[in-house]
Amino acid sequence: MGIAQLNPVEIIDLLDRAEAMIPISRQRKTLPSLAGKTQINLFFENSTRTQASFEIAGKRLGATVMNMAVRTSSVAKGETLIDTAATLNAMQPDAIVVRHGSSGAVELLSQKVECAVLNAGDGAHEHPTQALLDALTIRRHKGRLNGLTVAICGDIANSRVARSNLILLGAMQARTRVIAPKSLLPRGVEQMASEVFTDMEKGLEGADVVMMLRLQNERASGKLIPSVREYYRFYGLDADKLARANADALVMHPGPMNRGVEIDPAIADGPQSVITEQVEMGVAVRMAVLDALLNKEEDK
Amino acid sequence: MGIAQLNPVEIIDLLDRAEAMIPISRQRKTLPSLAGKTQINLFFENSTRTQASFEIAGKRLGATVMNMAVRTSSVAKGETLIDTAATLNAMQPDAIVVRHGSSGAVELLSQKVECAVLNAGDGAHEHPTQALLDALTIRRHKGRLNGLTVAICGDIANSRVARSNLILLGAMQARTRVIAPKSLLPRGVEQMASEVFTDMEKGLEGADVVMMLRLQNERASGKLIPSVREYYRFYGLDADKLARANADALVMHPGPMNRGVEIDPAIADGPQSVITEQVEMGVAVRMAVLDALLNKEEDK
Amino acid sequence: MGIAQLNPVEIIDLLDRAEAMIPISRQRKTLPSLAGKTQINLFFENSTRTQASFEIAGKRLGATVMNMAVRTSSVAKGETLIDTAATLNAMQPDAIVVRHGSSGAVELLSQKVECAVLNAGDGAHEHPTQALLDALTIRRHKGRLNGLTVAICGDIANSRVARSNLILLGAMQARTRVIAPKSLLPRGVEQMASEVFTDMEKGLEGADVVMMLRLQNERASGKLIPSVREYYRFYGLDADKLARANADALVMHPGPMNRGVEIDPAIADGPQSVITEQVEMGVAVRMAVLDALLNKEEDK
Repeated sequence: MGIAQLNPVEIIDLLDRAEAMIPISRQRKTLPSLAGKTQINLFFENSTRTQASFEIAGKRLGATVMNMAVRTSSVAKGETLIDTAATLNAMQPDAIVVRHGSSGAVELLSQKVECAVLNAGDGAHEHPTQALLDALTIRRHKGRLNGLTVAICGDIANSRVARSNLILLGAMQARTRVIAPKSLLPRGVEQMASEVFTDMEKGLEGADVVMMLRLQNERASGKLIPSVREYYRFYGLDADKLARANADALVMHPGPMNRGVEIDPAIADGPQSVITEQVEMGVAVRMAVLDALLNKEEDK
Repeated sequence: MGIAQLNPVEIIDLLDRAEAMIPISRQRKTLPSLAGKTQINLFFENSTRTQASFEIAGKRLGATVMNMAVRTSSVAKGETLIDTAATLNAMQPDAIVVRHGSSGAVELLSQKVECAVLNAGDGAHEHPTQALLDALTIRRHKGRLNGLTVAICGDIANSRVARSNLILLGAMQARTRVIAPKSLLPRGVEQMASEVFTDMEKGLEGADVVMMLRLQNERASGKLIPSVREYYRFYGLDADKLARANADALVMHPGPMNRGVEIDPAIADGPQSVITEQVEMGVAVRMAVLDALLNKEEDK
Repeated sequence: MGIAQLNPVEIIDLLDRAEAMIPISRQRKTLPSLAGKTQINLFFENSTRTQASFEIAGKRLGATVMNMAVRTSSVAKGETLIDTAATLNAMQPDAIVVRHGSSGAVELLSQKVECAVLNAGDGAHEHPTQALLDALTIRRHKGRLNGLTVAICGDIANSRVARSNLILLGAMQARTRVIAPKSLLPRGVEQMASEVFTDMEKGLEGADVVMMLRLQNERASGKLIPSVREYYRFYGLDADKLARANADALVMHPGPMNRGVEIDPAIADGPQSVITEQVEMGVAVRMAVLDALLNKEEDK
């Protein structure tokens, strides 16, 4: 249900499997390793890009993919989730890919079904395939993860992307830094990252990777952030701030970007940016994870 | 377009065909009997679970399935439906699965197209695959339908599930009972069911099957029902009321359930409940109906 | 990105290819010329029928089709479109079918991706497959396009259907007429059509084809049109007005129709109407265009 359940050997194995999927995806080929299998994308939150990535990954492997968009608003959540799980389970799918607004919802659902369950993001908890695709992107450029200095900047407190990345990078012996205004730092952040910065320029000093997070609009111009303009001034990645990082530092963003809010468009499209490569690696990682989980299920 | 058009021999034939589909679905296999065929799911009303059931049924048989969600709000309904029918027909699908808010809409649409049309629920009229899956579930547990006492409890007046079940069970010589407050009983109900009860405890006496219906939220706390709490007290299925039925009575619900409104969660998840089995039988029944109708179409 | 980029030889080639697709579609067969290829339908505007037509066309050719509905409301449009393009491109699809509310958006997107891009309608600019399916429908009945008198009637100013048809019919040496109240005529319309009429009866005199356009509800009862009733009186196609055209004139409409607004239901369903045939030709044309573009892409 998360990176937290993986050890370094398993992480490396998934990255290697994903690496092997890249040429298949690049040549727009299909590998029928999931032919005849049914994958349900169960999204309680909208996410066009993550859903599309899982859909294309499943289809490249020959799976039958069904998209189910569910609104939770009207109903008591805990009960509904369990009933939804029981209902889907009775339809005998091979895999369910779940995105849900509540931390732990994916874990709960997985206990009620017999098939493989993939976490496509649950609340502020985990987004494991995002961390894996980020790791794969970094490894392809830097050749390794251990010993690298990775700075994650933005709304750390509410970001499952940050959380999964910190767990994975920590497990792989990278040095992790988080950079954010105090209002966007979670309690106990010192135990999650090697170093914590509120000053972005200091935090970027010597970084090998700069990972920007999306600022949720509802957080800006509220209690937590004075304004978008202020945020950009102190925490938006521009050329001046990026100059503090190493000259060959990678610029990353999980998307979709708020250009001009957390990142200068020139940097997003600049030579250090690997943002679209992250999307490409996303398909490869999801192919690898689907393949690994569904073959494992078959072994039972 | 409904159970009303089927005779007992045809009903038994469909149940037998569905029975044969269960192992295919259970082993997560596909049977390519509809390979190359195109099924359109045309849903004028939202129904995640019924649509998913028809989609997975079609895909397990190798059909190409297209989902079309249509909103009727903006346009004059009768005309639009006919134009929609003509449009879809011109795209040459092999089957159209229709859910519509108006009774008779599916029948009307079927007159305008040349392909097979399946009723996935039309207004308060019929929901034939639901009645078939309920019958299959009962038959698997009781070995027969004739002579059984089946109590259907809840919003009888507005329920196509109740209506299709009453027709099917009547045709198969089961003894049918309806249980509801007077405000939720349709006119002429005495001709539809063997017995009519407003007292649930009396209605459950000696029942072999207890079929609960979903209470539409908009009906409660309105003119028809004083409150959800009152409704649960008199018509919610709990252990005390269930004790009036036979000891081996089945508890059924078409879903999605309002736990605590029409059914006690402990009963929904209890040993007599076959609610998730109903979902599983739904896929098998829809596979059988699609297969039967599309092969029939081919014979022409 | 539009009919404007096609010369008469290319138009005839596409119509011939589409003609060859008709029997495949009619016999409900599939032609696996796009097997293993991925087509993304990216619709920024709702269009159930055009999306379904492209989906069924792709699937009849064996492509894997993914539907992505995107809402543009929340975000700055230009940037998002480019980021969306980069994201989809990184997922390595073979074709993207785009509908967008802004003229030129499809062209812009196509510059940012490496795969084939098909225009399914962009703003008031072009709707090229609609013009091709209209041309195919006319050619099947009249045996030719050149020398025919085609009258297009309705909201010319805002219609990409009118615009693409005028370009195509002009290129094919047909005589084009536009008929509309002044408020619905675009500036410079004299350069787009052979003749311009505000009097419908005069405009229909001697026409071989009468092409009606859908009146957008928001335009009627506003500044541009006094009322729907007035509009129907002067610009709705009824038997009296149709009598001015040639006796064998075809009646066409891109759908969905506002019956009783721009067209009398009796005419829409009458013997001169080829409206549902247009829908059928739509699938054939889209099969032909997908096939032509994806094979061309492969040649690179």
